[in-house]
Amino acid sequence: MKFTKLLFVAGTLTGLAATAAFAQDAAPAAAEAAGQGSDAAAAAVAYATEPNVAYIFNTLLFLVGGFLVMWMAAGFAMLEAGLVRSKNVSMQCLKNIALYSIAGIMYWIVGYNLMYTGVDGGYFGSFGTYSFDAVGGNNLATGYSTASDWFFQMVFVATAASIVSGTLAERIKLWPFLAFTVILTGFIYPIAGSWQWGAGWLSVMGFSDFAGSTLVHSVGGWAALAGALLLGARKGRFAADGRGVAMPGSSIPLATLGTFILWLGWFGFNGASQLAMGTISDVSDVSRIFANTNLAAAGGVVASMILLQVIYKRVDVTMVLNGALAGLVSITAEPLQPSPLSAILIGAVGGVIVVFAVPLLDKLKIDDVVGAIPVHLLAGIWGTMAVPLTNAETSFGVQLIGVLAYGVFTFVVSLVVWAILKAVMGIRVSEEEEALGLDRTEVGVEAYPEFSVGRA
Amino acid sequence: MKFTKLLFVAGTLTGLAATAAFAQDAAPAAAEAAGQGSDAAAAAVAYATEPNVAYIFNTLLFLVGGFLVMWMAAGFAMLEAGLVRSKNVSMQCLKNIALYSIAGIMYWIVGYNLMYTGVDGGYFGSFGTYSFDAVGGNNLATGYSTASDWFFQMVFVATAASIVSGTLAERIKLWPFLAFTVILTGFIYPIAGSWQWGAGWLSVMGFSDFAGSTLVHSVGGWAALAGALLLGARKGRFAADGRGVAMPGSSIPLATLGTFILWLGWFGFNGASQLAMGTISDVSDVSRIFANTNLAAAGGVVASMILLQVIYKRVDVTMVLNGALAGLVSITAEPLQPSPLSAILIGAVGGVIVVFAVPLLDKLKIDDVVGAIPVHLLAGIWGTMAVPLTNAETSFGVQLIGVLAYGVFTFVVSLVVWAILKAVMGIRVSEEEEALGLDRTEVGVEAYPEFSVGRA
Amino acid sequence: MKFTKLLFVAGTLTGLAATAAFAQDAAPAAAEAAGQGSDAAAAAVAYATEPNVAYIFNTLLFLVGGFLVMWMAAGFAMLEAGLVRSKNVSMQCLKNIALYSIAGIMYWIVGYNLMYTGVDGGYFGSFGTYSFDAVGGNNLATGYSTASDWFFQMVFVATAASIVSGTLAERIKLWPFLAFTVILTGFIYPIAGSWQWGAGWLSVMGFSDFAGSTLVHSVGGWAALAGALLLGARKGRFAADGRGVAMPGSSIPLATLGTFILWLGWFGFNGASQLAMGTISDVSDVSRIFANTNLAAAGGVVASMILLQVIYKRVDVTMVLNGALAGLVSITAEPLQPSPLSAILIGAVGGVIVVFAVPLLDKLKIDDVVGAIPVHLLAGIWGTMAVPLTNAETSFGVQLIGVLAYGVFTFVVSLVVWAILKAVMGIRVSEEEEALGLDRTEVGVEAYPEFSVGRA
Repeated sequence: MKFTKLLFVAGTLTGLAATAAFAQDAAPAAAEAAGQGSDAAAAAVAYATEPNVAYIFNTLLFLVGGFLVMWMAAGFAMLEAGLVRSKNVSMQCLKNIALYSIAGIMYWIVGYNLMYTGVDGGYFGSFGTYSFDAVGGNNLATGYSTASDWFFQMVFVATAASIVSGTLAERIKLWPFLAFTVILTGFIYPIAGSWQWGAGWLSVMGFSDFAGSTLVHSVGGWAALAGALLLGARKGRFAADGRGVAMPGSSIPLATLGTFILWLGWFGFNGASQLAMGTISDVSDVSRIFANTNLAAAGGVVASMILLQVIYKRVDVTMVLNGALAGLVSITAEPLQPSPLSAILIGAVGGVIVVFAVPLLDKLKIDDVVGAIPVHLLAGIWGTMAVPLTNAETSFGVQLIGVLAYGVFTFVVSLVVWAILKAVMGIRVSEEEEALGLDRTEVGVEAYPEFSVGRA
Repeated sequence: MKFTKLLFVAGTLTGLAATAAFAQDAAPAAAEAAGQGSDAAAAAVAYATEPNVAYIFNTLLFLVGGFLVMWMAAGFAMLEAGLVRSKNVSMQCLKNIALYSIAGIMYWIVGYNLMYTGVDGGYFGSFGTYSFDAVGGNNLATGYSTASDWFFQMVFVATAASIVSGTLAERIKLWPFLAFTVILTGFIYPIAGSWQWGAGWLSVMGFSDFAGSTLVHSVGGWAALAGALLLGARKGRFAADGRGVAMPGSSIPLATLGTFILWLGWFGFNGASQLAMGTISDVSDVSRIFANTNLAAAGGVVASMILLQVIYKRVDVTMVLNGALAGLVSITAEPLQPSPLSAILIGAVGGVIVVFAVPLLDKLKIDDVVGAIPVHLLAGIWGTMAVPLTNAETSFGVQLIGVLAYGVFTFVVSLVVWAILKAVMGIRVSEEEEALGLDRTEVGVEAYPEFSVGRA
Repeated sequence: MKFTKLLFVAGTLTGLAATAAFAQDAAPAAAEAAGQGSDAAAAAVAYATEPNVAYIFNTLLFLVGGFLVMWMAAGFAMLEAGLVRSKNVSMQCLKNIALYSIAGIMYWIVGYNLMYTGVDGGYFGSFGTYSFDAVGGNNLATGYSTASDWFFQMVFVATAASIVSGTLAERIKLWPFLAFTVILTGFIYPIAGSWQWGAGWLSVMGFSDFAGSTLVHSVGGWAALAGALLLGARKGRFAADGRGVAMPGSSIPLATLGTFILWLGWFGFNGASQLAMGTISDVSDVSRIFANTNLAAAGGVVASMILLQVIYKRVDVTMVLNGALAGLVSITAEPLQPSPLSAILIGAVGGVIVVFAVPLLDKLKIDDVVGAIPVHLLAGIWGTMAVPLTNAETSFGVQLIGVLAYGVFTFVVSLVVWAILKAVMGIRVSEEEEALGLDRTEVGVEAYPEFSVGRA
């Protein structure tokens, strides 16, 4: 294959450009990072607002960020509805609204406290439901409304579950998928999350993942990969000679809409992960994050387009959509420190990863229906490993430990859970059901009853 | 039918769970409610921000809440476009953008003042157009910009009109529908609304409807029901033996998108109905409302899914979408006081209502194309009657009076208006036009000219 | 044709109504305008918030306004995907995500500084990339985060590029379109924009364009017109006898969704163009703008609907969608000063323009696939010329100079750029490719592989 050579060329060029950009970026970033340590106290005083005002701004950031990330649930639903065949579209719609609902309930029942309460350098928090502020809440000391914080964290866990939904489309049974969602959103994600955002052991060690390239996207990707391996590929997805057979999605405009929704939601995902905007420094950082997030996605789009034109002479729009998403995932681990040029390049590498990884998965005969593994897992790893390029307070070694820890834990536990579900209730529909489409057999409602011709 | 038995079982189980939850919920709610009365003045001082700042926060809440609720107009358009057959999709799109526009104009011409100005314990306000703040408005005394308040209230009236649009789809003429919209948005909704939110007689009596389970959703539902009765069912909707004949919607992903849009918009609908966020208590309450609103919708989804699997062995996604919406409608009358568990249960009962009420309407031969009557009218009544379960300042008796008053007024007046329109201009298209589809006969534009096969 | 007569009647009636409304509107507007001059300093003191708080509010306005306008990119994508034939839908999706990405990168590389830095009464600013606030930015003197300002201005340039995409659909090659986008977003738009918003020569002269009826919408429209003239009409678009042949769009619900998205985004477009909300006067003005923007769109809808019913006896929903957009474009040059009635009428005239201009373009054999020229160029001119009707600080003469200057510059430069692209790389696909559809030939991915019948 020519891929090897192209990969080398592309890698070299990107590497050269990146080195230049990041070198340029390094000095001020280091200075700023140091400044964050030493001048933080002074800045907090000089640029702070009155505590009541800061409380309202902080809470508002969680609420606005939260509804933007909630909207990403619709984005995943549309992306997946567009990328599966019409006979499985209703099923994807159902799975997405169901998983968002389950995530919300599980994260109240057990997830939030498991992730955030009493972790204290350890491996998980406490068990039990979460209590919001009382009505008329007035605990100024927290600095924000606890219900707004819960809401913001809850929508993140739903994102992780959405990633799994896409990869396993078109052949998984409804209820086993939902059972896995219960475990993922109530336990796997919160436990893993506690290590870093809950002030657990990885946080103590100095790992850094600003908004979740690893904690959300790679975790979702690992869980999806484990499921894909146990579930197997769709019937006919790989020919007798081992070649991948394309199964085109049913609606490119819905996939495009989904991508735009996700892009919009990402401003909340990354921006509100600043977790505060009660000082001018915080709101300025939120602004930097908005700009960098947008530039990284743009970098992913442009890089994937150029590469597709060079390699294939055509610009496959589904690859470009995934290029945008990979750019977004890549910048998520560190959307604040990069310069604009670094942000573009970090996103561009994400776009490049997608273009090469999608056919690579085909070679490995892993059937990832919507390309979630390249976008969320691989670009998530890249984004996490790229943090030290622009954030002088981090190290490649610790970042690697984090990536490996999340990978091993999530993959192994997910594999065990999928295996148990497979043994207990079965996870895959019958061949006949798969051929008919899940909309008829599991949902009982066709997505497009009037005009789908049911082409396999 | 087995429905009776199932209804009994489901009702009993839900009832038991709810009683437990609400009992647990009652004490603190009562304490807080009392607190709201006595400590309000003190809290207002302690947790308030400077008046200019509070004014900006309050106005911002109306603007952000307002654009989220405006977005619900798109949600209704997509939900309805997805749930009608392809030959009537353009018509639903047209009706939805038209009704949103008419609502905005009528609410400026007469609606706002009829609802909010000079009601004073009575039955309606004053007539006349509404004046916004002057340019450079600086009347600190109002506590928020009057234009932002108008904007926020205006988008609510559009919601009520959207509900009617869905029920009467596929057989109503365009202009009579728009004429009814003029009356509904300029007069029926504002007059009814004045009784409670305009500080009219029901408000004096102690009725409580935080964000409009009754004022918006049931009012829309009653107006829709009156129309449905006068309009009659679609041709072929009920077989000779009286059984309902399914007429599947043309696009499940659009219906799903519509539901997600409505869910997102509901954070504005309920959250901004707190009407203020210039104190930390207010913004904390907005946060509680966000969380509870989400949990209730999730409860509606999960309850309807489980029930559908138990009864039908398949999970009809359109029912689940309506389950989400019913959960949202149910929590709308009181999204602040419930504990998380109560919010989930209140929403779950909404989901249960949908699963049982949709076939019930079929039995009654009422043709409600999108299920708006179960979702908005019935869940709206449930939500309103559930308020005293978690809000100790309300009583079942007064809530019942409110529900009845809104029901009688809206249903009777709507019936009269529909009857007049029927007599004067006719409200239903001809049989031939109905068979051809309204897109060709009323709009002149097919929704999917290339691939719809026009299946009846 | 009867158009001439109808145009006369419609014009006269609208004119009479408008005169009455605007006369009523004139006095207070003048008084306020004067007040803005003289009392500004006093008001700024009396109604201001503490500088840190104002900084956060101002930045937040840019961020929220910015993500709303970013969302308009999805709106254009859906509008265009719905209004082209199914064989070109993937191409429109690709072009829209690509142009949004390119706009973002070009506006960082050169656009922002060319538009805003050192224009100083002249014709363009400086060259070079833009620098955001440093991490932990704390420069209180700017009054807002520079990154948030960049983000907000960046999404505007993408809007201008989107307009071009729609007009030239179904026959333009991908890469020449993207090359033009690079020039438009990096140079043409920023240079033209510098004249007014960058404090250039037109600003000195007293030209007024609040949020971009001319600077964004007409500029996009002129660039589109130049391209349409050089590109020529789609094959078969005009019959041998010169009559226009309708080529219906493939999905009315997607077009409707796109319109609702644009309407929502316009609250950010116009509202956040107030550029500040750190005083109660500013946030009150933002509120007025929200209300007026909504009323103008509603006016465009209602006017176009009535006119369509009168002329054609049917209400073409695509015309109504464009009526809404024309209403929005019309109010964009001055969304603050008009009274509600004036806002409705300004928007209504926009709706009337669309109904008459779409067939007019047909007569001129200009093939504007989505109607972008009537909506953005003509309604943009109308909106700009209507400013003096409600804003006493402006004059028709200067507005006309501005309209002409933008028209001549954008049209001529665009024509030259298109001509160069045509000579160098060719801008139009072959007849065979056009017949097959661009999705197969340029993108390699069909939009609806299962159910499109590929009808020409």
